[in-house]
Amino acid sequence: MIGAGAAAAVGVGSFYLGREDEERRADTRVAFHGEHQAGIATPAQDRLAFGAFDLVVDDRAALRDLLRRWTVAAELMAAGRTVGPVAPADGAAPPIDTGEALGLPSSRLTITFGLGPGVFDDRFGLARRRPAALHDLGPLPGELLDAAKSGGDLCVQACADDPQVAFHAVRNLARIGRGEADLRWLQLGFGRTSATSTSQTTPRNLQGFKDGTNNIKAEDGEAMAKDVWVGADERQAWLHGGSYLVCRRIRMFVEAWDRASLDDQQDTIGRFKESGAPLTGTHEHDPVDLTARRADGTPVVPVDAHVRLAAPSANGGTRILRRGYSFTDGIDPRTGQLDAGLFFIAFQRDPHRQFAAIQRRLGSADALNEYIQHVSSGLFAIPPGIRPGEHVAQALFD
Amino acid sequence: MIGAGAAAAVGVGSFYLGREDEERRADTRVAFHGEHQAGIATPAQDRLAFGAFDLVVDDRAALRDLLRRWTVAAELMAAGRTVGPVAPADGAAPPIDTGEALGLPSSRLTITFGLGPGVFDDRFGLARRRPAALHDLGPLPGELLDAAKSGGDLCVQACADDPQVAFHAVRNLARIGRGEADLRWLQLGFGRTSATSTSQTTPRNLQGFKDGTNNIKAEDGEAMAKDVWVGADERQAWLHGGSYLVCRRIRMFVEAWDRASLDDQQDTIGRFKESGAPLTGTHEHDPVDLTARRADGTPVVPVDAHVRLAAPSANGGTRILRRGYSFTDGIDPRTGQLDAGLFFIAFQRDPHRQFAAIQRRLGSADALNEYIQHVSSGLFAIPPGIRPGEHVAQALFD
Repeated sequence: MIGAGAAAAVGVGSFYLGREDEERRADTRVAFHGEHQAGIATPAQDRLAFGAFDLVVDDRAALRDLLRRWTVAAELMAAGRTVGPVAPADGAAPPIDTGEALGLPSSRLTITFGLGPGVFDDRFGLARRRPAALHDLGPLPGELLDAAKSGGDLCVQACADDPQVAFHAVRNLARIGRGEADLRWLQLGFGRTSATSTSQTTPRNLQGFKDGTNNIKAEDGEAMAKDVWVGADERQAWLHGGSYLVCRRIRMFVEAWDRASLDDQQDTIGRFKESGAPLTGTHEHDPVDLTARRADGTPVVPVDAHVRLAAPSANGGTRILRRGYSFTDGIDPRTGQLDAGLFFIAFQRDPHRQFAAIQRRLGSADALNEYIQHVSSGLFAIPPGIRPGEHVAQALFD
Repeated sequence: MIGAGAAAAVGVGSFYLGREDEERRADTRVAFHGEHQAGIATPAQDRLAFGAFDLVVDDRAALRDLLRRWTVAAELMAAGRTVGPVAPADGAAPPIDTGEALGLPSSRLTITFGLGPGVFDDRFGLARRRPAALHDLGPLPGELLDAAKSGGDLCVQACADDPQVAFHAVRNLARIGRGEADLRWLQLGFGRTSATSTSQTTPRNLQGFKDGTNNIKAEDGEAMAKDVWVGADERQAWLHGGSYLVCRRIRMFVEAWDRASLDDQQDTIGRFKESGAPLTGTHEHDPVDLTARRADGTPVVPVDAHVRLAAPSANGGTRILRRGYSFTDGIDPRTGQLDAGLFFIAFQRDPHRQFAAIQRRLGSADALNEYIQHVSSGLFAIPPGIRPGEHVAQALFD
């Protein structure tokens, strides 16, 4: 009912503009349409709301209709608009938009949609269009997964510089999908831990270290084409120009970390804490020299240091685009310790050859494992971008 | 050990300034010292981290020493500094500051300390200095409290425009207090729901309504003196110039709310959703006319509307300074619904005569009760502000 109402309302364009003027909204708007979905190459916004959904509908037409209505709503929100009237003319009807972002600027909101493996099971007649790499990552070392906070048939990554704008986006999409797609889990991230553009400084994660200095930057077209965007070698043409999203809720045992000595912390990461420079350098962006040895012959970057095991050179040249966020969800009632860490998000063209291969290496040997645990996991195919008039994942259905 | 280390480090002023220059930090700094603690009359910042602690120490000298070290750390953080070196000269020692706010501006950080009823039990010899109003609020209608997320011997309200700065403050205070004060619960708030200054616009809560239009504004010195600051009539002189903080985690049943009609929502609140105007007016700040009646004789503002029952005129002129934040902590596993709502914070000079009296009225008759539930509660005496060289609650110990 509500979903249908929202679709009707946005279909006739009867949305409310909010109080801010067109210019103010334009300043903080990220285009929703394009070759790729926004929210991947977009310079990482400060805050995150990430929702995963279980599909309740079980036929293809209903799934497509949901994606159509979600697309229209996302287009409106990305433009700084509500998904429909906050105060409908007929007061006996519920508001179409929940209203909490009314008056707030777009705040560089991006909404990125993904399709989980379940979309290609026997419910929707899409099994033959499953991309080869969209299957379970399998057990990986270093994980103890909470199924209730893992997986999902669909995902929505909402990023914005204002967390209320990001939360509003996921909430209103959940509302539009009520009875068709149930919100399975929701994660807020309060601080970005990645730079995805050369225009951004490298942020610090909750271990106090600069994270992802060597992350792929969107300006590096060659790396984006090689490691992030699904190319013409993918048999499923509907995914060309798309990507794969892997998310991992990585719990950090911050109390134990905070008791570790500076030397231990720096040897664990392989970088200096304050400057972010590799242990073999003096500036953050100095290259890591994995061959350097001390006078006594031991490697300057320890054999189990995170930066060594995660280095592309240690992983057959493999890189991923990281776009994670720090989180805390209060105290873990089982331990009395902070439930905090990194909600890791990475985009790549092949999650098995890239994320899973790296994680198999890291999860078994990384010195960091003493201080972290992967507690949830998600894998989603990210369809390419669309043009106005199309809906998300349109090529999958055509 | 760590606590003592932090005290030593900050005691000699060997703190790290961060990369931002003095001017940049000054722009976003709120003075820590003053007649009152910052974070009450301060224009409400955008984000919140709120921690409550159980005291593990059980003698007065240790409690005082903890407050002394917390004060020094809070002074540094409010000045945009770390609580000590992120990279201590001795690499065999742990970093004193956890580092995740290094390089971030102060972001108007305020750190407000409170003392719960437990400070005045028989552990610290302070029973005779207990302020009269610092005792349990008693069962109140409309609540179903989670004890694990309620109460506490001490509280820290950290507010900032950057959530990473607010989280860093609570985390580092928790670390300094390890073994002396255990973090009992922690709540993040992602969006302010109150204006506490005439310079601020009224924000919207997760019901999409402007919240607290008639909130006490800090510029209203008369209201602050009458309703917020503890005055000379309090027998415990150490609390003069202080206040009382009541916090309530108010779960909003947003799914049910979102299904309610606009008319229902507006009648429940007693205001128009879009404009925030009372049902008897056209502009947000128009006065509420509780006597207005429709042609058929029924009151324009329903008898059970929130704005009517919360109105000062319905509560013997009682007002409180609200300073709450929207929160979400994901999905409630028991119901599959969003665990989201309002982390309500109010300051007042007498929590029994003010908050509890209002809540007894609201909790039993407010139309809003259909859509909310109070699920946690805290009560803390807020000592007055201090001068440089003093520590928080100094007058309590002198």
